[in-house]
Amino acid sequence: MVLKVFGNPISTCTVRVLACIEEIGLEYELVPVDLTTGEHKRPPHIHRNPFGQIPALQDGDLILFESRVITRYLVRKYGKGADLLREGSLVDSVAVDQWMEVETQHFNGPISTLVFQHVFLPVFFGGSTDEKVVAAEAEKLGKVLDVYEAKLSKTKFLAGDFYSLADLHHLSYGHYLITNTPHGSLFHSRPHVKAWWDAISARPASKKVLAALSFSS
Amino acid sequence: MVLKVFGNPISTCTVRVLACIEEIGLEYELVPVDLTTGEHKRPPHIHRNPFGQIPALQDGDLILFESRVITRYLVRKYGKGADLLREGSLVDSVAVDQWMEVETQHFNGPISTLVFQHVFLPVFFGGSTDEKVVAAEAEKLGKVLDVYEAKLSKTKFLAGDFYSLADLHHLSYGHYLITNTPHGSLFHSRPHVKAWWDAISARPASKKVLAALSFSS
Ligand SMILES: N[C@@H](CCC(=O)N[C@@H](CS)C(=O)NCC(=O)O)C(=O)O
Ligand SMILES: N[C@@H](CCC(=O)N[C@@H](CS)C(=O)NCC(=O)O)C(=O)O
Repeated sequence: MVLKVFGNPISTCTVRVLACIEEIGLEYELVPVDLTTGEHKRPPHIHRNPFGQIPALQDGDLILFESRVITRYLVRKYGKGADLLREGSLVDSVAVDQWMEVETQHFNGPISTLVFQHVFLPVFFGGSTDEKVVAAEAEKLGKVLDVYEAKLSKTKFLAGDFYSLADLHHLSYGHYLITNTPHGSLFHSRPHVKAWWDAISARPASKKVLAALSFSS
Repeated sequence: MVLKVFGNPISTCTVRVLACIEEIGLEYELVPVDLTTGEHKRPPHIHRNPFGQIPALQDGDLILFESRVITRYLVRKYGKGADLLREGSLVDSVAVDQWMEVETQHFNGPISTLVFQHVFLPVFFGGSTDEKVVAAEAEKLGKVLDVYEAKLSKTKFLAGDFYSLADLHHLSYGHYLITNTPHGSLFHSRPHVKAWWDAISARPASKKVLAALSFSS
């Protein structure tokens, strides 16, 4: 039975899951959930995710939500070849966990606010960008990327000299920020962050899913 | 070599790690980091965690930060007996991941704000509780606990009928909220949440670390 991803091809969290699926090389069906009509807050979607958000995954009888839970599951179940979690080595796997958690706890907050302020708010909600919020979050993101710059001066990817879920989890918001906001220099002005970004975004699986995310704001 | 935890015995994130260590039954040394003098923002601590926060763990040559990364590592390396991740079963382990991520993404935000507003702000920073913030976050936490109530009416613990890291990660903030704020009824008014809380907080390992967290606000 083919995997079903319930989501939206321009939702950052959906694309996090799709990037993982393409990296492993799985077949899937994307079942659209229309956020504009509140479909995500009603049955049947609310039975997939009681918090009423996308994405969700259905794999046979199993239903999961939270993009980072779904990617971990897919790698464990189907991704032995791609080995994006390195669970064969305790030291490598804890390094992957370390940088996945940094993405969750430190990177996601400021970058999602910047993308919301520059893209979703004006394009979909008819609002206007709050420049004070933008300045504060850009400063926070810069400090986070200083930590990345230091780490990436020692290893090619975040968890070590191998591509992993810790890198992959950054793709969708990174691409949105660089392509659709004026803050791309936060990545490009830091040489090791830039080299890392160029490497992870140029992977065939990344290119395939990120192409859908560029539109003018 | 004995494990070193760099942190503070009343910090919720430090206690998350200590609860896990006690549950597994490991020896450790708690090395205090004094937040009041900014010790966490300077060397040597900033070399343990580039984001300048507690806790951090040292296990021989390996240094880790982020409480939820540390607990996962400790269970993998030392916790075969306690089996708090259930990695022998893909279905059980993804259920543990699912509810660990719910704690991170949905529970932690509102409960940490409530504890900050009622405890840390008045007790340590001489500020006063913002009742508007409190009302909004209490409502959010209530909605999250409605989801827990529904889940816990079907299984004894969050991930299934077994105690896991997904439950353990709730202990420190849950205890703070119930013991040191007026919002304990958010837990106690929901019968399955109450039964779950009574079960997880009464475990010998939990009692040992939570006892240190009660003080009047
Ligand atoms: N932590 C969740 C976040 C999911 C999320 O925020 N999804 C957005 C779309 S990218 C959504 O469903 N928004 C509608 C809502 O929250 O009501 C994940 O990573 O899956
Ligand atoms: N996500 C981190 C949060 C760590 C955290 O917020 N630690 C607090 C103490 S509980 C801290 O160090 N605060 C001081 C600061 O952030 O400057 C974890 O779970 O370890």
